[in-house]
Amino acid sequence: MKVTKLSGFPEYLPAERIVEQHVLDIVRETFELHGFTSLETRAVEPVERLLGKGGDADKEIYGVTRLADASAAKGEGSSRDPDLGLHFDLTVPFARFVLENAGKLTFPYRRYQIQKVWRGERPQEGRYREFTQADIDIVDVGELAPHFEAEIPLVMAEIFARLPIGRMTIQVSDRRIAEGFYLGIGIAPDDIIGTLRIVDKLDKIGPDKVKALLVEAGRTDEQADQCLALASIRTEDTSFVERVRTLGVKHPTLDTGLDALAAVIRNGMENAPGAMVADLKIARGLDYYTGTVYETQLEGYESWGSFCSGGRYDALASDGRTTYPGVGISIGVSRLLGLVLAEGLLVASRATPAAVLVAVNDDADRPTSQRVATALRARGIPCEVAPKAAKFGKQIRYAERRGMPFVWFPGAAESGGDQVKDIRSGEQVDADASSWSPPAEDLHPTVSAPAHTSD
Amino acid sequence: MKVTKLSGFPEYLPAERIVEQHVLDIVRETFELHGFTSLETRAVEPVERLLGKGGDADKEIYGVTRLADASAAKGEGSSRDPDLGLHFDLTVPFARFVLENAGKLTFPYRRYQIQKVWRGERPQEGRYREFTQADIDIVDVGELAPHFEAEIPLVMAEIFARLPIGRMTIQVSDRRIAEGFYLGIGIAPDDIIGTLRIVDKLDKIGPDKVKALLVEAGRTDEQADQCLALASIRTEDTSFVERVRTLGVKHPTLDTGLDALAAVIRNGMENAPGAMVADLKIARGLDYYTGTVYETQLEGYESWGSFCSGGRYDALASDGRTTYPGVGISIGVSRLLGLVLAEGLLVASRATPAAVLVAVNDDADRPTSQRVATALRARGIPCEVAPKAAKFGKQIRYAERRGMPFVWFPGAAESGGDQVKDIRSGEQVDADASSWSPPAEDLHPTVSAPAHTSD
Repeated sequence: MKVTKLSGFPEYLPAERIVEQHVLDIVRETFELHGFTSLETRAVEPVERLLGKGGDADKEIYGVTRLADASAAKGEGSSRDPDLGLHFDLTVPFARFVLENAGKLTFPYRRYQIQKVWRGERPQEGRYREFTQADIDIVDVGELAPHFEAEIPLVMAEIFARLPIGRMTIQVSDRRIAEGFYLGIGIAPDDIIGTLRIVDKLDKIGPDKVKALLVEAGRTDEQADQCLALASIRTEDTSFVERVRTLGVKHPTLDTGLDALAAVIRNGMENAPGAMVADLKIARGLDYYTGTVYETQLEGYESWGSFCSGGRYDALASDGRTTYPGVGISIGVSRLLGLVLAEGLLVASRATPAAVLVAVNDDADRPTSQRVATALRARGIPCEVAPKAAKFGKQIRYAERRGMPFVWFPGAAESGGDQVKDIRSGEQVDADASSWSPPAEDLHPTVSAPAHTSD
Repeated sequence: MKVTKLSGFPEYLPAERIVEQHVLDIVRETFELHGFTSLETRAVEPVERLLGKGGDADKEIYGVTRLADASAAKGEGSSRDPDLGLHFDLTVPFARFVLENAGKLTFPYRRYQIQKVWRGERPQEGRYREFTQADIDIVDVGELAPHFEAEIPLVMAEIFARLPIGRMTIQVSDRRIAEGFYLGIGIAPDDIIGTLRIVDKLDKIGPDKVKALLVEAGRTDEQADQCLALASIRTEDTSFVERVRTLGVKHPTLDTGLDALAAVIRNGMENAPGAMVADLKIARGLDYYTGTVYETQLEGYESWGSFCSGGRYDALASDGRTTYPGVGISIGVSRLLGLVLAEGLLVASRATPAAVLVAVNDDADRPTSQRVATALRARGIPCEVAPKAAKFGKQIRYAERRGMPFVWFPGAAESGGDQVKDIRSGEQVDADASSWSPPAEDLHPTVSAPAHTSD
């Protein structure tokens, strides 16, 4: 049967997968350091729950049907499961899980979720149809304390600080700033969302076109200028408050937004200096956010867009009686990996977990090599026994091709004991499997930025 | 919208998920200690690749279609993607991955794969429709050395030895023993598979019914008795060879099978004493195995069936020119978790990764508590800042409900420094966030068998 490449479904070779695992391990470890508990939800949700959620019209849903049902005559009236679809994000299933298990959870509920999601995009270059997201959310019952909005981006700043891929800036704003400001300059409440959506295009189409669109949409020339003036404000400290004030607009919602964003930025300056910036053009235009909103930019790769986005929503979930407000942020892991691997920003030191290849003297003697491997593994040293009792040169090349740093030779010492060779330096020394350890940096594959060649 | 429970799609609460993560961490760590590299394949394969693979007629496939395509008029002749389905195991996608990437992989290729799989089972009690499997396979080009068949079950024995859930026995046989034996007693080559399938029912229906079915299928009374005699042989050492010999049947394929199984059992006796047993009724009847086959039984839970199965296949994959033989074994993680959680065989010491709750004196003082948390996290101590500056009793109860062992009180010491309280013992001592650490066993949640109450 022909092997079919499917565009949009990334799969990684062993050394690439080690880079991905390294990133995911840092993400998980950091989430757990901040007391988030792990959740995995099923891959499918009822289609009616997926439809119309998230606001983005382009989130195309993959429907899931038992082939046995699909081929049977339709509409026979037999009892069928609800129509199912693959989840396109982790927020919709999380909200459903909270409603379903509210009685068994303790609130505020801090959860992280690292899973694949699927979007039935038309096949085209650079669009993923299956990808991994890593989300954190804090959700509470009825009300959610605002300090969580300041806490959430610190977790992401910590992750980016541990990934040596360049400077990742978290751009923060508060939806209430633009809302209050727009109301303050006389834009009608019904025109707020439309105005936000146009201003959200600023990075893509520039201020002149945004202004034209705003005027076309019925804003006055002066209102359009004010909207652009607000969107141009970007400060690393809380001086954005003063800059907004000098625009001379007053509205209580604007005050609330400015206070909230100032608290987030102050917290960032104290706990993650340089990681965050107040950027008032950030609106997450089409989403359901109601307070702080986050996006991120990687220096030098701004055109890739945001790798990590989120915000506060006053109604993550509701069962009619109880409302669950939340705040969350999501890393597009596959998106980030796509960049990291395409640009070679991170590389693995080897393509296997094994640090040692235990050579085999001859096939009858394989049990001896197996015993060495068992002794090494008992002390946490990943290793592999050579697949063939080939010439030692060939066994060494087997290790070399996979990047294993050491080859073990049972009985090679003059004493009859074993020896181990660092195949990078060629150094070969006497060693005992019950006590020898590789240097700590060789125990597991390491993932790091490659040494730069001058360019 | 109504929240819909979907049977067959297990989801875990925080403390249960910590048990699952613990099991998965042990599985991954052990796989890596043995030099297996990680692979994740996409969730979907072309339906034509899924159909007819694996041999089990009951592996029902979930088809996947973009809703946008499904609702559009069919058969318009526009170029469409191949029909896709969710994978029902990890072997079919692995085989496809090997064919697709053979030129970029090094052989023998040792890979592990821990992923969800989906089966469109009819909804019924105890049947999973989404579940996690953990597979290892070793695949080579053209030929695969037999010693790998002895190596693979040792990896699983190591995993089970680290899980305190009782005695897991790996039952091993070799397909060539039954095949050669059946040929040796005059069963026609075309009747071998049919005979194997009937004998495979032994555990379910007992020897009398198996004999009746065999005779019904055309075996002589004497042949049926010989088949049952062979299937009854089960030994912890290599004495099964002698017991087969005493049945007086001779065939070269039988000899090959006995030699191969003896090698596997000897390797097991040396490297994992007590973990394996030669059990000649194991046939993995409907599968594509051609050599060693494995199943496992958990003592006291034999009726749950096999948690871990696999074997050797001479043609895992083939592109017409090259054939890739392999040997592999798969743990049904969700199946095992289902038992472990239902019977309470393993419990988590707490429902959160956080070891410490940092109390908040009053809301204005939250930055102080945040600084303590940052200092603890910098040294790898998972913690959370209290969500509210409530009365300390209430903050302590917040920690208690989640099982966090420690609560930190900034500025509580007479010196003005901090104090930390072990809320299990009530002991409260002076502490400094830049140097204090919890006991090692409290740093992360632990997962263990609960202390037995007498019953």
